[in-house]
Amino acid sequence: MSTIYNERIGELRQWMRANALDAVIVPLADPHGSEYVASFWKSLRWLTGFSGSAAKCFVTPEETCVWVDSRYWLQAHKQLDESGIVVMEEGKPGVPSLTDYILAHHEAIKRVGIDGLLCSYKSAVEMRNEFSAAGIELVSIADPFAEIWKDRPGLPSDKLFVHPEEFAGESAGSKLARLRGAMTEAGCEAVLIAELSEIAWLLNIRSNDVRCSPVAISYLYVDEKEAILYVDPQKLTPEMEAYLAKLNVKVSPYLTAASSIDEAVAGKKVMVDPSTASLIFMEMLSDRAVELQSPVGLWKSVKNPVQVEGIKNAHIKDGVALVKGFMELERRMGAGERLTEIDVAEILERYRSGQPLFLELSFDTIAGYGANGAVVHYTAEPSTAAVLRPEGFLLVDSGATYLDGTTDITRTIALGPLTKEMKRDFTLVLKGHVDLARAVFPVGTRGAQLDVLARADMWRYGLTYLHGTGHGVGQCLNVHEGPQSIRLQENPVALLPGMLTSDEPGIYRAGRYGIRTENLLLTVPAFSNEEYGEFLCFESVTLFPYDLSAVDSSLLNKDEIAWINEYHDRVYSALSPYLDEAECCWLRAKCGHVE
Amino acid sequence: MSTIYNERIGELRQWMRANALDAVIVPLADPHGSEYVASFWKSLRWLTGFSGSAAKCFVTPEETCVWVDSRYWLQAHKQLDESGIVVMEEGKPGVPSLTDYILAHHEAIKRVGIDGLLCSYKSAVEMRNEFSAAGIELVSIADPFAEIWKDRPGLPSDKLFVHPEEFAGESAGSKLARLRGAMTEAGCEAVLIAELSEIAWLLNIRSNDVRCSPVAISYLYVDEKEAILYVDPQKLTPEMEAYLAKLNVKVSPYLTAASSIDEAVAGKKVMVDPSTASLIFMEMLSDRAVELQSPVGLWKSVKNPVQVEGIKNAHIKDGVALVKGFMELERRMGAGERLTEIDVAEILERYRSGQPLFLELSFDTIAGYGANGAVVHYTAEPSTAAVLRPEGFLLVDSGATYLDGTTDITRTIALGPLTKEMKRDFTLVLKGHVDLARAVFPVGTRGAQLDVLARADMWRYGLTYLHGTGHGVGQCLNVHEGPQSIRLQENPVALLPGMLTSDEPGIYRAGRYGIRTENLLLTVPAFSNEEYGEFLCFESVTLFPYDLSAVDSSLLNKDEIAWINEYHDRVYSALSPYLDEAECCWLRAKCGHVE
Repeated sequence: MSTIYNERIGELRQWMRANALDAVIVPLADPHGSEYVASFWKSLRWLTGFSGSAAKCFVTPEETCVWVDSRYWLQAHKQLDESGIVVMEEGKPGVPSLTDYILAHHEAIKRVGIDGLLCSYKSAVEMRNEFSAAGIELVSIADPFAEIWKDRPGLPSDKLFVHPEEFAGESAGSKLARLRGAMTEAGCEAVLIAELSEIAWLLNIRSNDVRCSPVAISYLYVDEKEAILYVDPQKLTPEMEAYLAKLNVKVSPYLTAASSIDEAVAGKKVMVDPSTASLIFMEMLSDRAVELQSPVGLWKSVKNPVQVEGIKNAHIKDGVALVKGFMELERRMGAGERLTEIDVAEILERYRSGQPLFLELSFDTIAGYGANGAVVHYTAEPSTAAVLRPEGFLLVDSGATYLDGTTDITRTIALGPLTKEMKRDFTLVLKGHVDLARAVFPVGTRGAQLDVLARADMWRYGLTYLHGTGHGVGQCLNVHEGPQSIRLQENPVALLPGMLTSDEPGIYRAGRYGIRTENLLLTVPAFSNEEYGEFLCFESVTLFPYDLSAVDSSLLNKDEIAWINEYHDRVYSALSPYLDEAECCWLRAKCGHVE
Repeated sequence: MSTIYNERIGELRQWMRANALDAVIVPLADPHGSEYVASFWKSLRWLTGFSGSAAKCFVTPEETCVWVDSRYWLQAHKQLDESGIVVMEEGKPGVPSLTDYILAHHEAIKRVGIDGLLCSYKSAVEMRNEFSAAGIELVSIADPFAEIWKDRPGLPSDKLFVHPEEFAGESAGSKLARLRGAMTEAGCEAVLIAELSEIAWLLNIRSNDVRCSPVAISYLYVDEKEAILYVDPQKLTPEMEAYLAKLNVKVSPYLTAASSIDEAVAGKKVMVDPSTASLIFMEMLSDRAVELQSPVGLWKSVKNPVQVEGIKNAHIKDGVALVKGFMELERRMGAGERLTEIDVAEILERYRSGQPLFLELSFDTIAGYGANGAVVHYTAEPSTAAVLRPEGFLLVDSGATYLDGTTDITRTIALGPLTKEMKRDFTLVLKGHVDLARAVFPVGTRGAQLDVLARADMWRYGLTYLHGTGHGVGQCLNVHEGPQSIRLQENPVALLPGMLTSDEPGIYRAGRYGIRTENLLLTVPAFSNEEYGEFLCFESVTLFPYDLSAVDSSLLNKDEIAWINEYHDRVYSALSPYLDEAECCWLRAKCGHVE
């Protein structure tokens, strides 16, 4: 059947012929490696109609294939089958990866185009290594949609604003000096930064360009004498212009970055991170580029004392909002009102957005009732959202960005009676969550070493979860940030004092229920001694009780019980000053002790 | 002061001048990367007088320096200071590594020689990478001691013997077929193996060439049609000649290996492991060498059912010997006899050597009383061995090689009253040991992920140990083998069913006492389920009780207590059939329960 999408793909094929290409890869990506991309770069959606948040499209003269991971298999078939677009179920046994698919068709496919802005240099090199033996050429092309996408949305045009030093804790000048120091130490004369949260952190600037991520679409060039922020000039208020001028940061238009950066760089040796810099920048810089991992990621991950104070304040506000929200949910459910997962998200957002310094949600709320809780990246849609009933589990993973901190918390609550197995699973998740939170470890310990603490007890029951246990969290920045992690896979980055990392084990029973429990952990010094050196531990900055009605306390040991009881006391002490009498009473009951 | 060693160093310097070298590195190594080396290769000892088991010597026209790690600092000064040889205390802050030292002297040192047989290709490449920028050349030289060491001992001449298939569980023919399969799959036409335990395992042959390691000094060349064992022909009995002939393995003299292998290889592409093959072999093979990690190490680490049965039998015998030995120790101490650490080693060796199929000790017994227990690689010397007194801890780390299996066990026992701190430390080590032994984990889990289980509880008290928690153990082969490990450092090798790995946490209080507790763990299937796949766990094959008189049971949780009590029951059931009444009575009392 012919659809609007077939017409659009036809136009792309014409463009391919005109450019002597055998195929084109259309990624769902922006030039900065962002997790969420602005509408301007959603060409895959415009081309195919697929509206999920992750996919790769591959177009040849004969066919169009879209690779999607398991969370989108169903949705992709619904949205793509009618146009005859082939859905490639990534991860399903027997389904080739995009690279393998191209290699298998190397007889017909010799020149594959990819927008050189939307592909990191690192991934381009990896593909080229795989393709070279088969005689396939990966060609860095200009954006084909610049010609064929007529009613394309513009680039985001929100204003930039300063992230005040009272929350950032370090001036942009000081951060730029650190960057110049690292640049000189690496034997370079300039640095080019493409990763948006690194730019936002370095300059203490924010915007609303990317959904759930308060960054500005930009590039930053820094050399010994000057710095240039490549950004849409319309986005600058007079205050921002003055702020940047004071930092000696010039402004240049975003869309002409490629050509202008080349000019600014001139003959200098430029430090560039190949995992975030676009292919075309690296090709342009050629032998002037020095490929180095950016030091900014590690700096950004270590929060200073001012940031830590802000993060703790943000978590008090977030806890207060959650108390009000879950109280309302309980009251309305109790009154017999018909509520869906969407209502849960709406209630929590309403209370969070009323808190001081609130900017936006830090990610789309996941409220999964019953079987939906087992879908790890579930997002409720109005037409299909589950209605809450007084039984089983509701999993709520949510968070907000405040000027002083970013939150990310998951609680799974019992809406009514639970089976014995449900209680066991809930308690195993809680055990893992608590055992990681209680860890004490020497300086130098990596997250991958601690990951097992969250899993060891559920493994005894033959249970596990496939996602990571912990990701880094920014301050008034991305809710997912590196470089540290706590997961099965090795990551050489050690946990440092000041890092903020999530602790979120889970158990998912497909088609039945899902359980996840998540706090954010701040790494702090524990103690030191002469013989064995310094030790670190975690402080749980998230403040909200666990649902003890779902706990089988016979599975908890005395250390875990003591930890939970102390945590519940701390949650009550921290939040009660901001609550009215009824709320205090509700929270007091929720912050009970495990006996 | 002039010594015999100054004369010898003088002769080496003459040789250096004759060969136009600015310096020579004299390693303490054999051409096979062995942990223990035969006297033939102890040229460092002959040259300098240093008798420790690990060192590197560096000779220039002006000075001679010997690098030793912390366990040998004291001994090196005693043995080297008189000759004016500089002791480099490796690991001490401010002491440069050998490479850094050479780099710092790059003005004078341009050509550094190293015996190309005693240096692996991999380490040569690493040194050359470091040296190249400084214009220093690392020259692969012939053995200088062939000329200057007149009364040099000969190569070991012990006979080879067959490791019977009733213990090996797989014929050499089958193993060679596996190797040829891997060779073909890697696109190679031949394989060269230098690592001695790999050769012993592949051909099911053993010898006594290397102390505490029942291997034969040899190389093995295998191609599609033939195999050649490069070994001293004097070492072959008529039976061994017949055995090898039946396997279609030819024999060629060891000392001419380099030239003969070149001839055998002719133009073939040869698979070689750069981490064990000598520099000169790789230089000789040049572009015919295909650098690949040998698959034999992984095959060897996975024990087949016949080997597992043998290993379990060996541990029964070893447990019986330990019961008899520790009973004798207790009796003689009780009778007021004056005993030293040396007596402990003698007693245990006497009982072990009386067991069926005993070959030799698997390593030098470590019996460390009091402060000596805190010296991780302690070996008692007759002149300085501590006298045992009825107080404090005795740490005994010992093992034997039997035809059916290799053992390695550490027990720390209280010889009398202990302080509260000693009991706490003992219990923390036991907790870690038990928590690792109790682990259940999904297929694919690496040792580095589990390491924390042995450390998490002692970390809470600011305690740790710097050695690994677990090493692989061969069957009637090296007591230390790869490729798996359980340690802080990442190692990508997953634990597989059939692997045998030690579990040996410790706490060392310098100058006071040391505690270590060690069993060998066999990885075995635990269970599997449809949702989450297969899980593995450990079976402790070592059979000897822990000293419960040293335990502070208030620090153990109920799972740990249950595990210890079950283990003690199992030890008693397994060993008592082989013990007389008095021994049973003694063991029954030692195999008590923690309440």
